[in-house]
Amino acid sequence: MERVNIAFLGFGTVGTGAYKIICNNGDTILNSDGIRLNVVKVLVGNIHKKRSICLPEGVLTDRFEDIIEDDSIRIVAEFIGGEYPAKNYIEQCLRKGKTVVTANKEVIAKHGLYLTKLAKEHGCGLLFEASSVGAVPVIRIIRESLQANKISKIMGIINGTTNYILTKMAEEDLSFETALQQAQDLGYAEPDPTADVEGYDALYKLSILSSLAFQTQVRVEDIYREGITKISKEDIQYAKELGYAVKLAAIAKKTEDGIEARVHPTFIPEKHPLASVRDSFNAVFINGDAIGEMMFYGQGAGDMPTGSAIVSDILHACQNPCGGNFLDVVKSNSIRVTDNWKTAFFIRMTVMDKPAVLHAISGCFARHNVSLWTVVQKGSGDGHSKKTVPLIFITHEAEEREMRAALEDIANVKEVTEINCCIRVEK
Amino acid sequence: MERVNIAFLGFGTVGTGAYKIICNNGDTILNSDGIRLNVVKVLVGNIHKKRSICLPEGVLTDRFEDIIEDDSIRIVAEFIGGEYPAKNYIEQCLRKGKTVVTANKEVIAKHGLYLTKLAKEHGCGLLFEASSVGAVPVIRIIRESLQANKISKIMGIINGTTNYILTKMAEEDLSFETALQQAQDLGYAEPDPTADVEGYDALYKLSILSSLAFQTQVRVEDIYREGITKISKEDIQYAKELGYAVKLAAIAKKTEDGIEARVHPTFIPEKHPLASVRDSFNAVFINGDAIGEMMFYGQGAGDMPTGSAIVSDILHACQNPCGGNFLDVVKSNSIRVTDNWKTAFFIRMTVMDKPAVLHAISGCFARHNVSLWTVVQKGSGDGHSKKTVPLIFITHEAEEREMRAALEDIANVKEVTEINCCIRVEK
Repeated sequence: MERVNIAFLGFGTVGTGAYKIICNNGDTILNSDGIRLNVVKVLVGNIHKKRSICLPEGVLTDRFEDIIEDDSIRIVAEFIGGEYPAKNYIEQCLRKGKTVVTANKEVIAKHGLYLTKLAKEHGCGLLFEASSVGAVPVIRIIRESLQANKISKIMGIINGTTNYILTKMAEEDLSFETALQQAQDLGYAEPDPTADVEGYDALYKLSILSSLAFQTQVRVEDIYREGITKISKEDIQYAKELGYAVKLAAIAKKTEDGIEARVHPTFIPEKHPLASVRDSFNAVFINGDAIGEMMFYGQGAGDMPTGSAIVSDILHACQNPCGGNFLDVVKSNSIRVTDNWKTAFFIRMTVMDKPAVLHAISGCFARHNVSLWTVVQKGSGDGHSKKTVPLIFITHEAEEREMRAALEDIANVKEVTEINCCIRVEK
Repeated sequence: MERVNIAFLGFGTVGTGAYKIICNNGDTILNSDGIRLNVVKVLVGNIHKKRSICLPEGVLTDRFEDIIEDDSIRIVAEFIGGEYPAKNYIEQCLRKGKTVVTANKEVIAKHGLYLTKLAKEHGCGLLFEASSVGAVPVIRIIRESLQANKISKIMGIINGTTNYILTKMAEEDLSFETALQQAQDLGYAEPDPTADVEGYDALYKLSILSSLAFQTQVRVEDIYREGITKISKEDIQYAKELGYAVKLAAIAKKTEDGIEARVHPTFIPEKHPLASVRDSFNAVFINGDAIGEMMFYGQGAGDMPTGSAIVSDILHACQNPCGGNFLDVVKSNSIRVTDNWKTAFFIRMTVMDKPAVLHAISGCFARHNVSLWTVVQKGSGDGHSKKTVPLIFITHEAEEREMRAALEDIANVKEVTEINCCIRVEK
C-alpha cells in the first residue's frame, strides 16, 4: 500500500464530492490501485464557515502557502473554477513540480497548451478528465483507447443545463423561459445562466475534446457559438413532426478543408443515439476510421460524477508522477480551422398568404445553390388574404456562407414578414 | 521513437483488421504514443494460402517456434479464437515472458485468473480489451476510470448477432428463423449460430465484465443463460404495445444477497437508453455509486473495431512491459453468487375462453407471492366458447424461484392450453 498526500484548492460542490468518494470508497480504491489517498490540506476562503462535511483538525486553510510550500503534497486538485485566480494557482503548483488535477474547462481550453508545457518542464502532470462531460471518461478514452484511430467527427451533448431545458420544452411543451426557471429552481442552472444557455460552457469543452481528437489546437476563438435562447416551442414541435429532436450540439469535424468546430442548436434525427439523450444527461458521439461509430453517455455534472473523474485522475497521477499530460499529443494550430462548413438547415419563416411567395423565396435559395429537401406550407386562407402563414423548409447540405447570403435575400422579399429561425440539421 | 516487434497468432478477420490499422494509422499512433509497431511474424496454418493482404517476405510462418523462440518479440497478439489450442499458445508465450493481447473471450472467461497469475510470475501482461464489446473500451473504463466507484449493476447488449436479429424481428416483423437467415447471409451470424443465439458469447463476456466490475470472480458456471430462439413475433409485438423493446441482455448486479449474473431475453422500457440500441450495435450500461448511470455504445465486433481495441492494448503493453494485467483486481470467488434474483416478468399464455380462468391463474400467482402489475386479456368470443385466447401478464418484482413455482401451478390449470413464454423485465 502506498499513501499519497494530496491537497484541494476550493471545497465547493465537486471538491466535496471528491472528498466523499475518497472517504467512502477508500477500500475499493486500495484494492484496484493499491493506493490510500490522504487529503492533507484544503484551501478555502473562510475556514470558519459551516460545512456539510467536517474535516479533520488542521486540514482547512486559507493560506495557499500551506500547500505550495509543503513538499509532502505531490498532487493538487483545483476546484475553484473560472479563469482567475485558478490559472495562477495551477501555474504556481506546476512550477513547484506538483501534478495538478482539475475540472476547470475554461483554464484548460484557454491555457492548456501553455500549462502542459510548464508541467513537462517541471516533471509533473496536468490532468483534466473532469473538465469535460463530468463522470464520462471521454478524454481518457480518446487518449488511451482510440489512439490507433483517425477520428473524423465528434458530436456531443455536453451541457446538461441546456439539455434539461430542451427536454422539458419538448416533453412538457414549456417555453424557454419557463423551462429555464425550472432548471434554476432545481439548481441545474445558475442565477446568471449565460455560460450555459449561450453555449460558452459547451464551447470550452469542445475546444478541449476536439484538440485531443484531432491532435491539433482548436482554439476557443476558432469555434462558432450560438445559444438556445431563441428556440421556441414552435420549432421544437415542427422538429417532432418532421422526425427530429432539437439539441444544443457541439460538433467538430476534420475534413479535407480543415477542421470545423461549432456549438449551436441542432436538429438531430430521432433514430440517432444522441436524440434520446434526455434531461441533464450528456453524451459524446465519435466517428473513427477503425471504430466506426461510438457513443459515451452519462452525468455531465454534479458533485459525485465529476468527483469520480477527479479521483480517477488523482490515482493516475499517483501511478505516473512525471507526466500523464493529456495535451501531450496536441500540436499548436497546424491544421486550418474553417468557418465555411456544410450542413442542412431547418428554416421557419412567416410570410403573407399570397400567390408567388414560395416562388420568390425558392428563387433566393436557388441563386445561392441551396437545394430544398422538404417544404411545409400550412395554408389557412384563400391564398389572397392579408393573413400570414408559417412556411418551413429543410434544405439539403449547403455551405454556411451561401445560406447566410440566401437568408439576406429572402429577408428582402416583401411578402416575408419574419425569418423566425434557422437551425442546422445533422445526420 | 521506439520500435516494438510484435507477432500475431492467426490472421483471420480481426488479425487482418489490426494489421491494417497498424499500417494505415502508423503516424497517428506515433504522434499519440511515440511508438512504431513492427509485425515481424504471423502464425498461420497455411503460408501459401491466398490472402487479401500481402505481408512482407518472411513474416508468415506455420511454426510457432519462430515466435516463441524469438527474443526480439515482446508482445504477441492472439487471434485464433476458441478454447484450444489458443489457451496453450497463450500459456507458452506468458511462460517466455511475452505479454499477450487477445480478443479470446472464452479463454479469458474460463482461464483468465490462472493466466494472469502466470503472467505476473513471468513479469509480463495479459490484456484483453477486444474480448468484450469490440471497439468499446469498457474494460479499460472499468479498470482505469471508474476505479473510485462501487459498481452495483452492469446491463449490456453485448452480442451483435442477436441484437441484429431482434431488431429485424421488431422493425420488419420477421420471424426468428427469417431474421437469423438474413444475419447469416450478411455474415453477422455463423453457419452454426449456437454460440450467439443461445447466449454463450454474451455469457463469456459477462463473466469477464462482472468479474472486473465487482473485483471478484464470477465464473462461467455461475451465470444463468437463456437464448433467444423461443422469442416470437407475437412477444415482440406485445412488448411494443406495452412500451418495451426485447433485447438479449447480460445483467450482473451486486446486492446484499451476493452477486447475480444472467443472460436472457429481456423487456427493456422504451425510454431506457439500451432500448434504442439497434442492429448489430452493442452497449453497456453501468451503475456506480459516484457516477450514477453511464452507458457506452459502439460496434461490438468486426475486423476494424475489434482490431482497434487490439492495437490499443498492444500500445499499452509497449508502455508497461511488466504488467497492465486487467484481472489483477479480481479475487477468486469471495462473494456468493446467487441464483434467486428478483425481477418483473412478462408472461404470455394461451387459455380457453371460459369463466373463472383468470381467477384460477391469479390464484396461482398469489399463492407464490407474485403480484400482478398489468393484465391484458383480449377476449374474442362470448366467454363460453371452445376458442382459446391469449392472456398477458406483467408482474411486479418477484423472486425467480417463486415465479417458477407459480408457473408450474399454472401449467396444471386445465383451461391453460399453453404457457407460451416468460420473459424477464428490467427497469
